[in-house]
Amino acid sequence: MSVALQSFAATTRPEQGPPRLAALRAALQTAGLDGFLVPRADRHQGEYVAACDERLAWLTGFTGSAGFAIVLPAIAGIFVDGRYRVQVKAQVDTGHFTPVAWPATKPADWLKEQAPNGAVVGFDPWLHTRDEIERIEKSLEGSGVSLQRSRNFIDALWEDRPARPRGVIRVHPEALAGEASAAKRLRLSETLTRAGQRAAVLTLPDSICWLLNIRGSDIPRNPVVQAFAILHDDGRVTLFLDEARLDGGLRAHLGAGVSLRPPEAFEAALRTLPGPVRVDAGTAPLAVADALGEAGIAVAWAPDPCILPKARKNAAEIAGSRAAHLRDGAAMVEFLCWLDARAAEVCAGTGTLTETETVARLEAVRRAGNSLHDISFETIAGSGPHGAVVHYRVTEETDRAVQPGELLLVDSGGQYLDGTTDITRTIAIGAPPPEARAAFTRVLQGMIAISRLRWPTGLAGRDLDALARYPLWLAGQDYDHGTGHGVGAFLSVHEGPQRLARSSEVPLEPGMILSNEPGYYREGAFGIRLENLVVVIEAPSLPGADDRPMLAFETLTWAPIDRRLIDVAALTTAERDWLDSYHAEVHRRIGPRVSAGAAAWLEAATAPLLAA
Amino acid sequence: MSVALQSFAATTRPEQGPPRLAALRAALQTAGLDGFLVPRADRHQGEYVAACDERLAWLTGFTGSAGFAIVLPAIAGIFVDGRYRVQVKAQVDTGHFTPVAWPATKPADWLKEQAPNGAVVGFDPWLHTRDEIERIEKSLEGSGVSLQRSRNFIDALWEDRPARPRGVIRVHPEALAGEASAAKRLRLSETLTRAGQRAAVLTLPDSICWLLNIRGSDIPRNPVVQAFAILHDDGRVTLFLDEARLDGGLRAHLGAGVSLRPPEAFEAALRTLPGPVRVDAGTAPLAVADALGEAGIAVAWAPDPCILPKARKNAAEIAGSRAAHLRDGAAMVEFLCWLDARAAEVCAGTGTLTETETVARLEAVRRAGNSLHDISFETIAGSGPHGAVVHYRVTEETDRAVQPGELLLVDSGGQYLDGTTDITRTIAIGAPPPEARAAFTRVLQGMIAISRLRWPTGLAGRDLDALARYPLWLAGQDYDHGTGHGVGAFLSVHEGPQRLARSSEVPLEPGMILSNEPGYYREGAFGIRLENLVVVIEAPSLPGADDRPMLAFETLTWAPIDRRLIDVAALTTAERDWLDSYHAEVHRRIGPRVSAGAAAWLEAATAPLLAA
Repeated sequence: MSVALQSFAATTRPEQGPPRLAALRAALQTAGLDGFLVPRADRHQGEYVAACDERLAWLTGFTGSAGFAIVLPAIAGIFVDGRYRVQVKAQVDTGHFTPVAWPATKPADWLKEQAPNGAVVGFDPWLHTRDEIERIEKSLEGSGVSLQRSRNFIDALWEDRPARPRGVIRVHPEALAGEASAAKRLRLSETLTRAGQRAAVLTLPDSICWLLNIRGSDIPRNPVVQAFAILHDDGRVTLFLDEARLDGGLRAHLGAGVSLRPPEAFEAALRTLPGPVRVDAGTAPLAVADALGEAGIAVAWAPDPCILPKARKNAAEIAGSRAAHLRDGAAMVEFLCWLDARAAEVCAGTGTLTETETVARLEAVRRAGNSLHDISFETIAGSGPHGAVVHYRVTEETDRAVQPGELLLVDSGGQYLDGTTDITRTIAIGAPPPEARAAFTRVLQGMIAISRLRWPTGLAGRDLDALARYPLWLAGQDYDHGTGHGVGAFLSVHEGPQRLARSSEVPLEPGMILSNEPGYYREGAFGIRLENLVVVIEAPSLPGADDRPMLAFETLTWAPIDRRLIDVAALTTAERDWLDSYHAEVHRRIGPRVSAGAAAWLEAATAPLLAA
Repeated sequence: MSVALQSFAATTRPEQGPPRLAALRAALQTAGLDGFLVPRADRHQGEYVAACDERLAWLTGFTGSAGFAIVLPAIAGIFVDGRYRVQVKAQVDTGHFTPVAWPATKPADWLKEQAPNGAVVGFDPWLHTRDEIERIEKSLEGSGVSLQRSRNFIDALWEDRPARPRGVIRVHPEALAGEASAAKRLRLSETLTRAGQRAAVLTLPDSICWLLNIRGSDIPRNPVVQAFAILHDDGRVTLFLDEARLDGGLRAHLGAGVSLRPPEAFEAALRTLPGPVRVDAGTAPLAVADALGEAGIAVAWAPDPCILPKARKNAAEIAGSRAAHLRDGAAMVEFLCWLDARAAEVCAGTGTLTETETVARLEAVRRAGNSLHDISFETIAGSGPHGAVVHYRVTEETDRAVQPGELLLVDSGGQYLDGTTDITRTIAIGAPPPEARAAFTRVLQGMIAISRLRWPTGLAGRDLDALARYPLWLAGQDYDHGTGHGVGAFLSVHEGPQRLARSSEVPLEPGMILSNEPGYYREGAFGIRLENLVVVIEAPSLPGADDRPMLAFETLTWAPIDRRLIDVAALTTAERDWLDSYHAEVHRRIGPRVSAGAAAWLEAATAPLLAA
């Protein structure tokens, strides 16, 4: 499979926005609409979208992974969350687009405030879920402002729109998947039968890939196939995918239980299903339910049946993840060793180091082993003030050389055939400022608190998130993102439903993989984040423990944490012990896998803190 | 006001239950019903009920503060939560009543399992809220089992039922309330007007007492008046209360804005109100909405408008609470000094100490200052294994002498005119078992974590609860109750809506008073709980802090924590510092308020840990 190296070209320019906005407003006026919703999401509600679905970036210039615009006659709001407050100002023409702090400001509240009385705002029902539209409509009740299904005006205006992706599709071997697709389909069809559902509509690419044990390359950095599918209550699947994209081996792998139909046949096929049909109100396009409803077919609103089984990784998937993390850890150690040498040159004034060099080197090191399928997302390498841009992606325009006394935040990951990785390390370039060291220590304490955690079964991310923040809170500090996200098995690096976050009420279950990534950001100065992946396990038995089932995390990620940024005196004995034993394990597991130079560096980098 | 000392007489006997159950079943059969719900709650949904409302205890023998029974032809379930699993077995005849673990087993699920097909189960709509009935009915949908409003069969059978209480009612002075009743009424009426509500029905005694700045003595340990009221959108209040119960001063205090009507007139008055009428679906009897609905009056479901303003204590109420806690702390220190002397005799074999003596002594010490209005609940004094009964209330039958090497858990509080207190201390009688000392230390660490906490505004108890449990979790331990409950200002010792618990989604706000009371219980062996009250404040400024609003707790309770139960080596420096500085404050604030003997004892009990 060919994949593209990370590029540093800016894909958008702020000045492209205003004329496109003017054209959109003209089209809306002609259509008798007062506004239009422009989401980042595509029809599959993924975090990453294909180039042809970058409607929000096309209109506004904003390329972040979440957000949306609402265009009205006199104002166009660009809604972004805490991670993107800084980035949005650099990417959009704020004379024409008004950044709105989301989710603090809800779209409906903004509409009530900004939209003309009686305004009718259009939206494309293929790009929004029922939950999303219902939430807005409920809040708009009685306001005089209303939403209305419409065609997609961006698609109509976008002249040089790229073609739909047709990436290579391959079999995901059963040895890595841990369960045959036929077994998964049978298992889920029994769920449907028990619930009295005749079929389930699958619109999430990673659900379909998981169910069919296939992987693709339609979306950058996400090994998924963009398709729709219908799972029938007898275990058969109708997959809406151009048959020409499958080679003979893949067709044989899918077997007789999977029928292929062209993508264009999806909507019509919905209208012929026996009901009730299971549809996920939180992820399926509203247009799916519209089609069923128009055909008089009952909709059973329930979550995509693949989501939870996919989130609970089986033994083969966990073993794969462990193996992938050893490979990825070795790459990280080679990279960190190189980085330290370059940092020494920077501090000695004998060399420089830019963000783009950092990204390119890390990707090259990861690819060197030939086992990398792709990076799992565009590497974030933020030096000094760029570290405070939570989802910073360097371009040639923003690239800068790291300076002595700065921090360098590197958030990256790999897609391996046996697992997906995601790791963040923050590295000192020379002597760090004391406040950065103090904050780094608190972030580390939060990460350790989650790593050591053991908790009674039944709790959700919301119940645990505070533990990662407590050391920062005591100092009056915090970070404006969740503590962790779910991670797929050679699938999306951001995968639900589990999260370590205030917004997550989904109980954690054994086998779920999550990131553990507290951070701290001081705008204009520095950014800190530390991230390991962890997998939920049944807590090992412990003398004196209650007779109650408890869960714990097993750490998957193995790479040193910069000891120069730790205020050792601020750690408790237990925290110091955790870090020392983590570092001893990093040394033991990764040492044998790296070059001699990196091994020597690793030895020093993982020495116990007290001996430092 | 005369109040009764805590009594140790058992108020129920298990053998009373079966004949009453048989009579109830006969009455149900005659009425054509298959079952009946018997809640602990009265018409005011309070935690404490008057003797005439002890229907659950009358029928089953169970006297706990929460729970309910469901009587069916062949089985009668008594639903109790984790606090009462042990107690219920001692109080009810388990040959006739089957204890059910609630809330793990939901009433509707139990009914679906146990009730005959097509069963119709009666309930008294004055004793249940809409939320409660709706939850059960929703879950019963399609099961064939249904609920049906009926008369109250317990009331019909209960021959020697006590009379409704007619306790003394008095003015709560504005100096303590911090705001005139007229000002409160005006403030709330503006809330109604803004929401387009013509009136609000008030059914919670503490809401009515708060709104009218009155206090009563209808309910043991709760200085409330049991009444219903209607707040009109012009700020007038109709109070349903026998006018003969008011003296002239009180009538003058209420003023022209408060009309009195006899309690019997309440239901009829509802039917004459202009709508929409605000009713709290979570606290008002379903019968209130029934009456409005039958009269064609629109119901606006919304929380009791007094609840949040009452929970946010004003400056006068917080000052009152601080003052009450100093008085209560002095009583606690006198008591703990006495207790240590008695414990020494127990260990020397020269004396004994029973639970009833402990309770009586503590109450006597609290009353000695003449400022105590009443204790705020029946004191819990659990020695050895009784400590593991979370809401243990000693009776002559259960009383036992504490033994050397045991723990004694004492949870108690006072109602003072200026504030309500609630404090738990666990005391070592001689050398404690190592596992109790280890668990005590973890409970203390949890309590300290909450005490030191500072957090960004907007978070609820659910977001913080884990912090109190983390030290126990790491050892595989936990406790089956919330970490803290709201507390009133010379009102109910348990007051909503704020809680420090997984079940609470209400954001904490400045002025809210809560308990901070982690615990640990080993059935048959020992119980540990530590409890201070805290008030939410705006977090004091801190160098290096983010520019984000944060909240913190100010501790209100001042009494030593048993240093003999602390494994000092297990504490972090920060935890040790917190405890030492807390103890220094206890010494500074309480030392001057106690007898010479107690002062000497306090000096030693509050010495720094390292010098111990």
